[in-house]
Amino acid sequence: MSDAAAESPPELFRILFLGDIIGEPGRKAVITLLPLLREELKVDFAIVNGENSAAGRGITPKIAISLMRAKADVITTGDHIWDQKEIVPFLYDEPRLLRPINYPAGAPGNGSLILQTKRCKVGIINLQGRTFMRDALENPFTTVTKVVEEMRQETPVIFVDFHAEATSEKVAMGWHLDGLVSAVVGTHTHVPTADERVLPKGTAFQCDAGMCGPMDSIIGSQIDPVLEKFHTQLPTKFGVGRGPVRLNGALVTLDPTTGKAVSIERIARVWQE
Amino acid sequence: MSDAAAESPPELFRILFLGDIIGEPGRKAVITLLPLLREELKVDFAIVNGENSAAGRGITPKIAISLMRAKADVITTGDHIWDQKEIVPFLYDEPRLLRPINYPAGAPGNGSLILQTKRCKVGIINLQGRTFMRDALENPFTTVTKVVEEMRQETPVIFVDFHAEATSEKVAMGWHLDGLVSAVVGTHTHVPTADERVLPKGTAFQCDAGMCGPMDSIIGSQIDPVLEKFHTQLPTKFGVGRGPVRLNGALVTLDPTTGKAVSIERIARVWQE
Amino acid sequence: MSDAAAESPPELFRILFLGDIIGEPGRKAVITLLPLLREELKVDFAIVNGENSAAGRGITPKIAISLMRAKADVITTGDHIWDQKEIVPFLYDEPRLLRPINYPAGAPGNGSLILQTKRCKVGIINLQGRTFMRDALENPFTTVTKVVEEMRQETPVIFVDFHAEATSEKVAMGWHLDGLVSAVVGTHTHVPTADERVLPKGTAFQCDAGMCGPMDSIIGSQIDPVLEKFHTQLPTKFGVGRGPVRLNGALVTLDPTTGKAVSIERIARVWQE
Amino acid sequence: MSDAAAESPPELFRILFLGDIIGEPGRKAVITLLPLLREELKVDFAIVNGENSAAGRGITPKIAISLMRAKADVITTGDHIWDQKEIVPFLYDEPRLLRPINYPAGAPGNGSLILQTKRCKVGIINLQGRTFMRDALENPFTTVTKVVEEMRQETPVIFVDFHAEATSEKVAMGWHLDGLVSAVVGTHTHVPTADERVLPKGTAFQCDAGMCGPMDSIIGSQIDPVLEKFHTQLPTKFGVGRGPVRLNGALVTLDPTTGKAVSIERIARVWQE
Ligand SMILES: [Fe+2]
Ligand SMILES: [Fe+2]
Ligand SMILES: [Fe+2]
Ligand SMILES: [Fe+2]
Ligand SMILES: [Fe+2]
Ligand SMILES: [Fe+2]
Ligand SMILES: [Fe+2]
Ligand SMILES: [Fe+2]
Repeated sequence: MSDAAAESPPELFRILFLGDIIGEPGRKAVITLLPLLREELKVDFAIVNGENSAAGRGITPKIAISLMRAKADVITTGDHIWDQKEIVPFLYDEPRLLRPINYPAGAPGNGSLILQTKRCKVGIINLQGRTFMRDALENPFTTVTKVVEEMRQETPVIFVDFHAEATSEKVAMGWHLDGLVSAVVGTHTHVPTADERVLPKGTAFQCDAGMCGPMDSIIGSQIDPVLEKFHTQLPTKFGVGRGPVRLNGALVTLDPTTGKAVSIERIARVWQE
Repeated sequence: MSDAAAESPPELFRILFLGDIIGEPGRKAVITLLPLLREELKVDFAIVNGENSAAGRGITPKIAISLMRAKADVITTGDHIWDQKEIVPFLYDEPRLLRPINYPAGAPGNGSLILQTKRCKVGIINLQGRTFMRDALENPFTTVTKVVEEMRQETPVIFVDFHAEATSEKVAMGWHLDGLVSAVVGTHTHVPTADERVLPKGTAFQCDAGMCGPMDSIIGSQIDPVLEKFHTQLPTKFGVGRGPVRLNGALVTLDPTTGKAVSIERIARVWQE
Repeated sequence: MSDAAAESPPELFRILFLGDIIGEPGRKAVITLLPLLREELKVDFAIVNGENSAAGRGITPKIAISLMRAKADVITTGDHIWDQKEIVPFLYDEPRLLRPINYPAGAPGNGSLILQTKRCKVGIINLQGRTFMRDALENPFTTVTKVVEEMRQETPVIFVDFHAEATSEKVAMGWHLDGLVSAVVGTHTHVPTADERVLPKGTAFQCDAGMCGPMDSIIGSQIDPVLEKFHTQLPTKFGVGRGPVRLNGALVTLDPTTGKAVSIERIARVWQE
Repeated sequence: MSDAAAESPPELFRILFLGDIIGEPGRKAVITLLPLLREELKVDFAIVNGENSAAGRGITPKIAISLMRAKADVITTGDHIWDQKEIVPFLYDEPRLLRPINYPAGAPGNGSLILQTKRCKVGIINLQGRTFMRDALENPFTTVTKVVEEMRQETPVIFVDFHAEATSEKVAMGWHLDGLVSAVVGTHTHVPTADERVLPKGTAFQCDAGMCGPMDSIIGSQIDPVLEKFHTQLPTKFGVGRGPVRLNGALVTLDPTTGKAVSIERIARVWQE
């Protein structure tokens, strides 16, 4: 006689991830919508990428705190992490603000974290690509392998924000980590991709989550100055765009006992002040 | 008293665009599905990007002919256009095979074309970006402005395949051409983006159409060699992947009298031999 | 019977060129030494590259004027030309301050100039390379061809400062212009090359003139912060180095009636306050 | 009373280094001249960079053997090391052929070597830069620190061939290793620099040694195809140039008991078949 309880589906765990938050418009949209989305989508854990949340360039302690108050459990970042100098001491104090883990040894702050939630431990890794990117970080593939191996001693529920430019490097990272982590979701291009899927061994993947920033913009920046730059090649200041905000992200549903993803779904909302 | 006929909606025109066709798997999928899609989606005009259709590298005359027989009206390409040497004389003979228009003056072949269809004249422009790309082509923004201006003397129905890497450059091109062409659709990254929209002045835009190639691959190439490359940095041969094929593209619906887009819709199909 | 006068050597013309001037140390060395070098080396015309003369970043009107007072006839620049905003209006006013000619049409200032001297007219062209450089300027090869053609209608004495990174692009430019201009001398790497020669058709060539800046530095910048950057990949501020200054340049001797170079000689001086 | 013997100069040790050997012309020049230069310059140890010795692309076992027969004690290479496939097994067999040491762990071959000579042990390190270079190798600064530390347990006489593009990275490496190695000499740009000097703590430095290859060429390649490439951006085949060969290198004289360099001298010879 079968034991019904044993056959019942495991209770699932939901991680909401939001892509690069751009300046004040992006912050306002996230601070307003994130608590609502947590309810609506039955989110257990929320991660946001905050690398452009301070006027498009970096993040400040104050902004990081405001995002965490709006129920972001962890904030990931990317190549813009160092844009605001005051963030450096904060990186030492606040473990829930991550910077890419593959900076050379000795960089301020941390690139990964394990948090205990009511239901399970969640590991988060912030990783940066190299192809077409300016800084020469350590090999993200060999670096992540070691970090994931250690993390899996504590939990199979692992979320990787892979902040990278080239689709080849991002798709490669998905396959590299398939079966080893719950999700690999990309950031940095500010454009969401329509390739979300659960890979064969159980890792949810999406090349890029997109951004939380002004719709009528060039990846967050005002249209005219960027167009001028492409025409003239002269130095140009790009302010953050205005108007309605598109909030883009991914919702990953997983089995917390195995860490395997069950689904990944694109999230898109438009918000206007 | 109003004239009902005058108020009736203009008859619409539909252009189907398919992203970079990868090797034999991509070709077979397109040759099989394109005629069916033309029926299913009531397509008036079909454009495919063939830059990777010859084993992932370039295109041959034979392949180009087979794609046109499968009802591709025009074939666009990109940075891989020169990979197969035998294509050079064919570029002089076959106006319906395009290469990026912003190669320096004197390059073989053409980068744009106007074709007369039953319903309207259709202009097609193949353009290449510069950010993160190897070859130093002419400024795509200033180049395209001139070409579009001339083309609009003949027809407002203009489709631009912008073959580029960086999202900023691609999104910028959409805004640059908004109101001047019917559609700007990107190619080259091989990953479809979920940002398709009609811009305020009537231009349909999508950052990247994605590819027609093997699903279980790294942007078309076999997974293991690419992963090895990212780990070792040693030279590695990448064959085309195998298995089920994902066919990605965009369907643009427009008013042929004004050239304005009414809608743009992502197209995705899975095909298996 | 031969006419002695006809056989006598043509009177020669000497152009001194000094490489990128770095900040205050470089400026002081040039302002002190240039008048002396003009005497010592019997210089007819002096050109200096001033792109790093304002604290390593760009040039100001005041600095440009001080260099011209120290007997620089023309100041060339490069990719750093826009670093100091106040230079933009000055570029419109002062024709003897050049910026690279292959910026897209409409950029402030000029990239070439013809000056009448007592002995002959001298044409100067400031050109920028593309390989490994950030901004996407117009093709320097096709651009320079047109400019040289026009200039040669007025004078065969033409000096080209080719501001570029890659040796292949710079050496190629030398061969491209051989016989059409008097000299092609490179700048931008801040390290003098030992490949100076007169090419077969009479053009003096040197891949890079080097810099006028502190010897104990990393191409002009303080050593420790640059080393830190290479180790950590974190953002770092690079001040201009201190201590003895190396002044590097090239002396081109030419026949002003034909524009052909007779010799090119590396110039190196050490100066200390 | 002073002890004369103690005051006598230490017997000095001379290392001759020759820059990138280009194809057959470069090989022939080196094979002919190297034995003569060893006599003429009283060379104790000779190192040559062979990365372009096989028709401009890589090196073969046969060529490596011919260079060692011509009295090259060690052959260094660079980014072209993998161009000829047959070199891979040979890299396992022949320790005197080096490839850049900062390839990721597991790459075939070795990047350093200590050889016992009659007078002292000589350590050689082949290192590759990253700025503007295609492959993403491990950080050359942190890598070399470890290797040098270990090597210095055996010998203070250490020669580093730093194969890199950017002058900033190369000059930085000189300062980084000043006092820790006998010499840092750069390769890869194929143009000799005129900045050779002994740094304050005793390390001989030169940004680039130049090449052993055809004078009338574009860094070794035939002029016309390279010019065509810069004009058209179309794919072009570059053969190795012809005619007289310039052999470029550096002669480092050092105290073998301390490893400190006494002098560094540019070596340039022209050779014609
Ligand atoms: Fe971002
Ligand atoms: Fe980023
Ligand atoms: Fe492609
Ligand atoms: Fe492409
Ligand atoms: Fe400079
Ligand atoms: Fe520069
Ligand atoms: Fe080389
Ligand atoms: Fe090289």
